[in-house]
Amino acid sequence: MIAKGYAASEVGGQMIAWTFDRRKPRPEDVEIDILYCGVCHSDLHQARNDWQNTVYPVVPGQEIIGRVLAVGSSVRKFRPGDIVAVGPIVDACLECAHCAAGEEQYCLNRPTLTYNGRDRVSGDVTYGGYSTGIVVSEEFVMRLPQGLAINRAAPLLCAGIAGWSPLRRWEIGAGSRVGIVGLGGVGHIAVKLAVALGAQVTVITSSPTKIEDALKLGATNVVLSSDERAMAEASGHLDYILDTIPVPHDLSVYLDLLSLEGSLVVVGSLASHGSIRPESLLRGRKRVSASLVGGIAETMELLQFCAERQILPDTETIAMQDINMAFARMEHRDIKYRFVIDMATLKAEMA
Amino acid sequence: MIAKGYAASEVGGQMIAWTFDRRKPRPEDVEIDILYCGVCHSDLHQARNDWQNTVYPVVPGQEIIGRVLAVGSSVRKFRPGDIVAVGPIVDACLECAHCAAGEEQYCLNRPTLTYNGRDRVSGDVTYGGYSTGIVVSEEFVMRLPQGLAINRAAPLLCAGIAGWSPLRRWEIGAGSRVGIVGLGGVGHIAVKLAVALGAQVTVITSSPTKIEDALKLGATNVVLSSDERAMAEASGHLDYILDTIPVPHDLSVYLDLLSLEGSLVVVGSLASHGSIRPESLLRGRKRVSASLVGGIAETMELLQFCAERQILPDTETIAMQDINMAFARMEHRDIKYRFVIDMATLKAEMA
Repeated sequence: MIAKGYAASEVGGQMIAWTFDRRKPRPEDVEIDILYCGVCHSDLHQARNDWQNTVYPVVPGQEIIGRVLAVGSSVRKFRPGDIVAVGPIVDACLECAHCAAGEEQYCLNRPTLTYNGRDRVSGDVTYGGYSTGIVVSEEFVMRLPQGLAINRAAPLLCAGIAGWSPLRRWEIGAGSRVGIVGLGGVGHIAVKLAVALGAQVTVITSSPTKIEDALKLGATNVVLSSDERAMAEASGHLDYILDTIPVPHDLSVYLDLLSLEGSLVVVGSLASHGSIRPESLLRGRKRVSASLVGGIAETMELLQFCAERQILPDTETIAMQDINMAFARMEHRDIKYRFVIDMATLKAEMA
Repeated sequence: MIAKGYAASEVGGQMIAWTFDRRKPRPEDVEIDILYCGVCHSDLHQARNDWQNTVYPVVPGQEIIGRVLAVGSSVRKFRPGDIVAVGPIVDACLECAHCAAGEEQYCLNRPTLTYNGRDRVSGDVTYGGYSTGIVVSEEFVMRLPQGLAINRAAPLLCAGIAGWSPLRRWEIGAGSRVGIVGLGGVGHIAVKLAVALGAQVTVITSSPTKIEDALKLGATNVVLSSDERAMAEASGHLDYILDTIPVPHDLSVYLDLLSLEGSLVVVGSLASHGSIRPESLLRGRKRVSASLVGGIAETMELLQFCAERQILPDTETIAMQDINMAFARMEHRDIKYRFVIDMATLKAEMA
């Protein structure tokens, strides 16, 4: 499958149009015409080699919504025309203990990332969703439920599941006192999801301009992290904190907000999570963990939940050609809360 | 109550005999003739001002076994002649959420430590168990159950509860795959307790000389932390790790031994717990926590359990006059596994 995409070809480089070959479909593969792709912070980091592991040229994009074009001979779950989704992982060993538990993202033999990964069969570099089409093994393709707006659903596949998985694993529900630290791509969906799960949500943010937003999203309380008095008053009043700050920071100021045996979960990226004062863990047997997106089954559960409750990310649709502008605006935090690329704009460029 | 004790009077100083006045008993107080006192690593740290908060002269000792001499007018639980125990905490606010939950050690208004603390009423410095007698509020005195050897039970009050509390809070029982990192005062009792709770215990130690001991204590596996191959083979096979290493260290090498969603709990001191590679938490949603001794009710539960199962620390009884030698041997790790001071030796000195 010949695909056109947008790629960064060198460190710090601009995103530019690039035509490349997708792998020849295997019997278990689904060929997908990409309709929309979310723009994730990881995309920016990878394009710029912030994690020192980018193989250039890199085609980012791990929040993919598309339409099935064709299926391999062994594919049973999909047919041409189906509206489907693909997230940050396109393969895993499916044999280890973690895969067996439905946690392919933690595959002990390393999951294959949607881009800047290595195909398990050919060893070739994988290319992501900033492109016209993609070829993905059936097991890593998800059906988009009826009723979920296809032009806005894409960010659920990374930003959405990043919050959903820990909320579910820590059994957040009615009566849970949940803190969401940081109101960005992940945080704003997490607030909607936690509220929908019945939790009482407190948003902790460093931006006074986000107070109103947080309340609109359904939070019952907002605490400015710079307000020492408000932070002290909130001390000990949360059972669970989802920390979505994407850069290393001191976790202890948030641990202090937890009640006895409360848990703080860092929404993982490969970035460092920062420092912890030992006392802040010790005084109340607090717990720290980290969580990385979710497995395929759990992501499908999220999509179903969002379809039923009509929960969608707040998005701004852009043309593929505007991706450099979008990256720049993300760096300046000038987005509420997620860009979604309309791939019709890329196909028009090809015509 | 005039007491004789052994105190350090200056930084790095020797322990020397010192006569001092205990507080005048209040209606809720129990006056205790001290029979035995365990020697804890904290004692050494405090005597040398390692934590930069020692008020000299300091009388250490927070693992106290004694006999009730007299009780105040409002005391209902104890009578003269009762054999009792006192641990690292002698008071707390008893009103905050943590105290209400039976977790006085995490009192939000700071618990009063048995020594180098401040009496909540008078503000005077508290003095510990390296002495002939002590005055303690009834709520922080525990009855020693029948059948527990009074000359060996003392280390249960700090080293023992330090392991017991997290084992119980993380619900360790039949079938649990438990790792105990470090085989010292805390570790050796924790192995006995975890085995008695039905767990399958793996000891992880840096000392080849402790392999045989670990098996004798009931461990089914021993892994040398310096043996990279053995550590790799053990990877992912533990559900729970109790980390008793008393100095800052890299937690990630132990996190790697945990299965999906496994927990590592650092047995707390005020020392730093060391570093964590973010990936080691992330890949499998591992959890880190810390735990500081236990509450009074939980310590009584431990004493009862040990009496019923005849579980006792491995101790070496010393004279009060040998405390400087004992500290030196502890520094050289030359103790299996806990010194207990026989206070008759101090009383003989007074005669």
